Amino acid sequence: MEFNKAVSDLAVGDQVEGYYVLGNILLKTSSAGKPFLSCTVSDATGSMDAKLWNYSGPAGPGDSGKAALIRGEVTSYNGNLQFIIQRLRFAGPQDDYDPAALVPAAPIDPEAAMAELEKYAKSMEDGDYRRLCITILDRHREAFTRLPAAKSMHHAFLYGLLMHTLNMLRAAEGLASLYGEVIHRDLLLAGTLLHDLGKLWEYNLSPLGLVTEYSTPGDLLGHIYMGAREAENVGRELGIPEEKRTLIAHMILSHHGDPEYGAAVVPQFAEAELLSLIDRIDSRMEIYAEALPQTQPGRFTLRVPALDKRVFRID
Amino acid sequence: MEFNKAVSDLAVGDQVEGYYVLGNILLKTSSAGKPFLSCTVSDATGSMDAKLWNYSGPAGPGDSGKAALIRGEVTSYNGNLQFIIQRLRFAGPQDDYDPAALVPAAPIDPEAAMAELEKYAKSMEDGDYRRLCITILDRHREAFTRLPAAKSMHHAFLYGLLMHTLNMLRAAEGLASLYGEVIHRDLLLAGTLLHDLGKLWEYNLSPLGLVTEYSTPGDLLGHIYMGAREAENVGRELGIPEEKRTLIAHMILSHHGDPEYGAAVVPQFAEAELLSLIDRIDSRMEIYAEALPQTQPGRFTLRVPALDKRVFRID
Amino acid sequence: MEFNKAVSDLAVGDQVEGYYVLGNILLKTSSAGKPFLSCTVSDATGSMDAKLWNYSGPAGPGDSGKAALIRGEVTSYNGNLQFIIQRLRFAGPQDDYDPAALVPAAPIDPEAAMAELEKYAKSMEDGDYRRLCITILDRHREAFTRLPAAKSMHHAFLYGLLMHTLNMLRAAEGLASLYGEVIHRDLLLAGTLLHDLGKLWEYNLSPLGLVTEYSTPGDLLGHIYMGAREAENVGRELGIPEEKRTLIAHMILSHHGDPEYGAAVVPQFAEAELLSLIDRIDSRMEIYAEALPQTQPGRFTLRVPALDKRVFRID
Amino acid sequence: MEFNKAVSDLAVGDQVEGYYVLGNILLKTSSAGKPFLSCTVSDATGSMDAKLWNYSGPAGPGDSGKAALIRGEVTSYNGNLQFIIQRLRFAGPQDDYDPAALVPAAPIDPEAAMAELEKYAKSMEDGDYRRLCITILDRHREAFTRLPAAKSMHHAFLYGLLMHTLNMLRAAEGLASLYGEVIHRDLLLAGTLLHDLGKLWEYNLSPLGLVTEYSTPGDLLGHIYMGAREAENVGRELGIPEEKRTLIAHMILSHHGDPEYGAAVVPQFAEAELLSLIDRIDSRMEIYAEALPQTQPGRFTLRVPALDKRVFRID
Amino acid sequence: MEFNKAVSDLAVGDQVEGYYVLGNILLKTSSAGKPFLSCTVSDATGSMDAKLWNYSGPAGPGDSGKAALIRGEVTSYNGNLQFIIQRLRFAGPQDDYDPAALVPAAPIDPEAAMAELEKYAKSMEDGDYRRLCITILDRHREAFTRLPAAKSMHHAFLYGLLMHTLNMLRAAEGLASLYGEVIHRDLLLAGTLLHDLGKLWEYNLSPLGLVTEYSTPGDLLGHIYMGAREAENVGRELGIPEEKRTLIAHMILSHHGDPEYGAAVVPQFAEAELLSLIDRIDSRMEIYAEALPQTQPGRFTLRVPALDKRVFRID
Amino acid sequence: MEFNKAVSDLAVGDQVEGYYVLGNILLKTSSAGKPFLSCTVSDATGSMDAKLWNYSGPAGPGDSGKAALIRGEVTSYNGNLQFIIQRLRFAGPQDDYDPAALVPAAPIDPEAAMAELEKYAKSMEDGDYRRLCITILDRHREAFTRLPAAKSMHHAFLYGLLMHTLNMLRAAEGLASLYGEVIHRDLLLAGTLLHDLGKLWEYNLSPLGLVTEYSTPGDLLGHIYMGAREAENVGRELGIPEEKRTLIAHMILSHHGDPEYGAAVVPQFAEAELLSLIDRIDSRMEIYAEALPQTQPGRFTLRVPALDKRVFRID
Repeated sequence: MEFNKAVSDLAVGDQVEGYYVLGNILLKTSSAGKPFLSCTVSDATGSMDAKLWNYSGPAGPGDSGKAALIRGEVTSYNGNLQFIIQRLRFAGPQDDYDPAALVPAAPIDPEAAMAELEKYAKSMEDGDYRRLCITILDRHREAFTRLPAAKSMHHAFLYGLLMHTLNMLRAAEGLASLYGEVIHRDLLLAGTLLHDLGKLWEYNLSPLGLVTEYSTPGDLLGHIYMGAREAENVGRELGIPEEKRTLIAHMILSHHGDPEYGAAVVPQFAEAELLSLIDRIDSRMEIYAEALPQTQPGRFTLRVPALDKRVFRID
Repeated sequence: MEFNKAVSDLAVGDQVEGYYVLGNILLKTSSAGKPFLSCTVSDATGSMDAKLWNYSGPAGPGDSGKAALIRGEVTSYNGNLQFIIQRLRFAGPQDDYDPAALVPAAPIDPEAAMAELEKYAKSMEDGDYRRLCITILDRHREAFTRLPAAKSMHHAFLYGLLMHTLNMLRAAEGLASLYGEVIHRDLLLAGTLLHDLGKLWEYNLSPLGLVTEYSTPGDLLGHIYMGAREAENVGRELGIPEEKRTLIAHMILSHHGDPEYGAAVVPQFAEAELLSLIDRIDSRMEIYAEALPQTQPGRFTLRVPALDKRVFRID
Repeated sequence: MEFNKAVSDLAVGDQVEGYYVLGNILLKTSSAGKPFLSCTVSDATGSMDAKLWNYSGPAGPGDSGKAALIRGEVTSYNGNLQFIIQRLRFAGPQDDYDPAALVPAAPIDPEAAMAELEKYAKSMEDGDYRRLCITILDRHREAFTRLPAAKSMHHAFLYGLLMHTLNMLRAAEGLASLYGEVIHRDLLLAGTLLHDLGKLWEYNLSPLGLVTEYSTPGDLLGHIYMGAREAENVGRELGIPEEKRTLIAHMILSHHGDPEYGAAVVPQFAEAELLSLIDRIDSRMEIYAEALPQTQPGRFTLRVPALDKRVFRID
Repeated sequence: MEFNKAVSDLAVGDQVEGYYVLGNILLKTSSAGKPFLSCTVSDATGSMDAKLWNYSGPAGPGDSGKAALIRGEVTSYNGNLQFIIQRLRFAGPQDDYDPAALVPAAPIDPEAAMAELEKYAKSMEDGDYRRLCITILDRHREAFTRLPAAKSMHHAFLYGLLMHTLNMLRAAEGLASLYGEVIHRDLLLAGTLLHDLGKLWEYNLSPLGLVTEYSTPGDLLGHIYMGAREAENVGRELGIPEEKRTLIAHMILSHHGDPEYGAAVVPQFAEAELLSLIDRIDSRMEIYAEALPQTQPGRFTLRVPALDKRVFRID
Repeated sequence: MEFNKAVSDLAVGDQVEGYYVLGNILLKTSSAGKPFLSCTVSDATGSMDAKLWNYSGPAGPGDSGKAALIRGEVTSYNGNLQFIIQRLRFAGPQDDYDPAALVPAAPIDPEAAMAELEKYAKSMEDGDYRRLCITILDRHREAFTRLPAAKSMHHAFLYGLLMHTLNMLRAAEGLASLYGEVIHRDLLLAGTLLHDLGKLWEYNLSPLGLVTEYSTPGDLLGHIYMGAREAENVGRELGIPEEKRTLIAHMILSHHGDPEYGAAVVPQFAEAELLSLIDRIDSRMEIYAEALPQTQPGRFTLRVPALDKRVFRID
Repeated sequence: MEFNKAVSDLAVGDQVEGYYVLGNILLKTSSAGKPFLSCTVSDATGSMDAKLWNYSGPAGPGDSGKAALIRGEVTSYNGNLQFIIQRLRFAGPQDDYDPAALVPAAPIDPEAAMAELEKYAKSMEDGDYRRLCITILDRHREAFTRLPAAKSMHHAFLYGLLMHTLNMLRAAEGLASLYGEVIHRDLLLAGTLLHDLGKLWEYNLSPLGLVTEYSTPGDLLGHIYMGAREAENVGRELGIPEEKRTLIAHMILSHHGDPEYGAAVVPQFAEAELLSLIDRIDSRMEIYAEALPQTQPGRFTLRVPALDKRVFRID
């Protein structure tokens, strides 16, 4: 009996006990008329189908996303691994497990990353943009640190928003220097730091912090509007001049580049244009980083939904 | 010498004095090397090209849109009427003229229309939507009454926003009753009343109240975002529940129906869907009302830019 | 044993006998090699999967859509209800059952609705449009009353065409009065009454009157062309002036608004433009009315195919 | 003084008298205040700008497209030839001139071409399609012979419809033989012969037979609908079976291939698909034939409006 | 026991031995935990699902597309035929079977077709185009003869490229004669003969010559680029003038007509334009030829993927 | 009399002699019937309309783009400056003038820039990509240094291709380091360095090196195809493995990102994807750099054709 063995290491015949996340919980009836529970068992390293035979509750779909202490055995079904659960108990406050081990997380040190983010904010010479960024970070530090940047597609893991924003700031710093003739560095950095601010209100989260679905305001208003509104409201509160608030709000509203991709307005000055392209670069590079491990060198992946095409892994 | 003769009544040979609006002012040089002023002379009934010979200032392009007392004679040039200005003085506070006679205005009584608008607001049984609408009307009464609804295209005249909003409320009232099974009347009416609220900040106006161009926030943020933001901010101030604020903001954000036409999000509930269609109906009907007088019964107009097609006037 | 119990009221363990419609009839073989019949059992209130074990005919796919007297028991399979048929006999002329109870129907009184439709027709002051509408209604009264307005999407039930046309006439009456300056009421009402006339030839119907598939002319010519052709032919026969026939035909040809949605030409006068928007309003409102009951207040539906989006049911 | 000299042969200094067509007639005032008539002078070989000084009527825009007996001199203005008219009289019944010399015509013998068209019609083994084609040709022989196939773009000359239809029949004959496995020759030929039938009612014509503008039914209904309607009505009158009438009507309705290009429905059987491609081939080849003479071998033309691109003339 | 019985002739109960192609090979586990092989058994006449019970290798997915000698019995499963394999051995060099009987092939005599292709090449009066075509045919004769023209969609069988190219040459010959005024016959024929040349490098082939998937250069570069490059390189080697090489390369690069369909540039001279339309005709006619046998006269097919629509089989 | 005074410094009344470029040369006739030459006079700093009265040749349109020694005076016409040429002689080999002063040039030191480009090439650790880049630079050093990167839009000046390529290499270096997990630096740099290689054959140049129009291969084949072909041919000659040649060719073929923007294929691996975004960034930033000086801070430009929108210059 191994304890907390990583899902990616499980093999047929393993006897396992440990804390895992149960997902997609469904109560079903077998062809023989017996009730059973069907779900997935996952941790930060992967996911596997699972069954708990002769089970009719109390666990149900509403418990999806929760951590549980389970015991069981790994078998094979139709060529795929399947976890046969023998005992199941959802974790409570008294349980001593590492949440970070149970859900996928960005490959970064979140404290160091947040510190670097704040260093970018403090480096702005323009006091208005600096105060705006620092104030917003101060108010939303924890959520900004932990939030995934998406429900699926890319960066859909803990610290995803932080990783995405930080990578974009690094790219922005370099490109601001290269195109110094047309780019106001502090404006570009402030717009970059705040561009996905509205995601703080866009999602409903699972107990362990992953996105389960869009929140009602997320669906009805979208993060683009909510981010611009929040940046403007905080800016007004801080006495930031209207023109600067308008510039920041424009960058947030236009950062998807094209109305077809959700932009409320098209980018109309150089910093907004560049922000929308940096966002596209970081999204695309992360999509490749997540897709390429799924195929062999010299081969194409299956169709990648976030790109709507197959992509090639160079030998 | 006739005084304040309507532009639409002017004919070759008329000797005229009166208050008119000068537009498109340019300072030019004739082929003989003489300086002259080229402009348009207009009032609420129409517009005519004009020249002031041997003139090099001080009037210039920045005076376009101002009222002036002018004297001159109507001549013909290349088959079109042309006003030869002999004397020109811009109107000041001491001048006694009727601004309403100088710019086109909606064919409505603005006070009666505003009263009807408020009656719709007060008729709402839902106290939240009612307070929101009444508060916003109270704060912006004058601007909401006078503003054109566009720079060109349709409703580009004084009281245009009021006329457009009121007509839509009348249509909304009738359709809410017809589709009572899926439409919450007060929500539809509140969304209709507020849908173009953001236009209050979208334009720069001429001295006499017409739209000369978009304001910087109008260009960079758009009336859709600014209207939703204002409605939400006032709603929060009034203690309106978040869900209702979200519904109103969604209706404003989605009232253009399709991202291709400027919607920040697509309509996602029945009242938002219906609002976007009522807006289309009122816009289209007004475009026809403005276009059809330009052709004869049984004939097609020239291409109407706002529709991107020629339209037929029934015999 | 209950008789003719509504499908929406059936529960596990019910013993039932009654008249129901059988749909999607397939003859299959079980994994044990036994023949059985798989189908749906439905009435106006809903539908349920059903099985008739050890059955190899004579019923087959060609009997789908027919009423039958069946006896059996309601069971549960994989969490869903399943009707186990024990006896089955298709209904013949001698059977005494209410067809209206077996297929979904518009929530209207068809006779009163047809009377209201005719009142609109008779209210036209223009004798040409009046005669055209009344003549066509007279010739096709029964089909016009009973026909669904679609195979799926919306109004796909008995009296659907009548309900859709009548609702649009009511909206047209109100909007014609609001936009009296540009709208000729009788023309708008005549075009509205006749706009879906071609649907009379567009479908093949099940024995109980629902649309099973498009007819060959429905597929190859479409209801838009067939409706315009019929209106013109009847108009010529009645001596209606060519220009009026052309206006009516244009309204039918253009009522989908855009070639992308099937319009043969784009609307080119105000009544045609308004008709296409009223059609869109009534279609959309009915889609919401059919979709919202499928979710809870405060929640989104699944993707609605007819709208290609999820929609929100307000709390 | 030369008589009826071809416009394409005129040179500076020529003294000319003869019958020409006047087009784009406008009455203007010179900068010196003198009235004059501005127009074009054209015959089948080309067109030239013209002026008639000190003229204020009675000729006016409504006379555009008429033949006139004119006398004058060819001069040069700004590098282009200009015809200075000295005398002008519109031609009446007593005038003896050759209309065919005055307007561009297809480079075919119209009688021989019509005979070949009828030979194709008579060659059909299917008596229904044969009767339908022959009857329609008999009823509209003269219009079908003389009509241009367009207002501009391509085939916009006398006999244009005939030339276009005949070329397509020749191509159809060859391709029907090549794809005999899927193509019913008689159906393809009948659809081809009748595909532009509706053009007989689509245009208003100048006195000499060119298209001046769309007719009201041409604009509001389009030739596609009118052609299908006529073919169906004649077919019904002749007792042609409904299925065959439907096939022919479908081919006419779908021959533009795509709703974006005006098709009322998309082609749904092989003959309709092939017809739409033969139509595209003949249109494109004629556009090239008309465009290439406007440039030198080895050079590109200016943008060709009918193709929305520049095209290359091979050396 | 019948030997090599055609798949399309197999019926329940047949005892069969013979050479067939195995496709979609998968190793699975039954619900009873027993390993088995699932695959298809096919020859040139059709395909059927098959099972080999209690089999765990050595055959596997990598053997898909190979010929094998199999013995077994035809049964029925869920209404479809199923081949139960009893013995299985992949064919080796010593096996005496007819590969042409095992995979679908174009209904042409490949030698006669290739001879006709060469006759077209030799018939060119322009020595440059003639040499280019003959040289390329000489170098790639075998591949050009055997290659399918696609992985699926149309012409996805042996000799498909040859059949497609030859049919297009026949159509090109006829149309070049009809449009001799704008079409240079030899250029049209050379471009037609070479238009799909790049397909020689676009696919990976199964042991029996069908396309299994795109090659890496096929995916990354596409046949359009590779064909133009090859034609240019051979042309340079042969000393063909640059302008002619450019014309041929342009025809290859543009033969899909529109960038949306893969064209690298749009057709810019008449021969390229006509080639793209002939390609469309031959593709469409073949799609109909392959689709229509799947339905009854007077009925529509299911949606045809290559056309994205259902099509009608005329009675 | 000033000599070689910069066009941007010229003012009314200046008497000037010097070397300038004449553009848009046209021979016209005045309203008084006198011949004159109309053209532009330009140098690297700007352009001005010019007239040479009473001139009928020998200079003509074919001399546009040539340097000339001219003498004359600056006057004002209709509010704009106009150069009245008094003497004109085209420059020949004996003339001593600085071509670089006569045409706009990138604000870079071309030798230093080319040296930096080569440093990037030499820095590649992969010998294949390094040899390929260095060989191509060696063969085309002068053209690669001097060529503009466009006819208009952006970088349409001397050294434009070099400046564009170098800026992209700098951005690529930074981003390759940021996204090292998915980006092979040498491949990205090689693709970047070679992406616009085909422009060497895409243009016809004026005597002083600006693009006057597309070459025939430029129009018929495009730089994307020509660049990939050249890179592949040189690569084959150097013995570079086929897979690497394919990767480089793919990056060139796909660098416009989308077929709608001219890409022959869509980017299918990470380096190609990133290259297309770096290209977009550098193009956009340069368009802003060229457009913003045309307006005041705090104002919008006129519509920028290369962006199809107006853009805002931040205060």
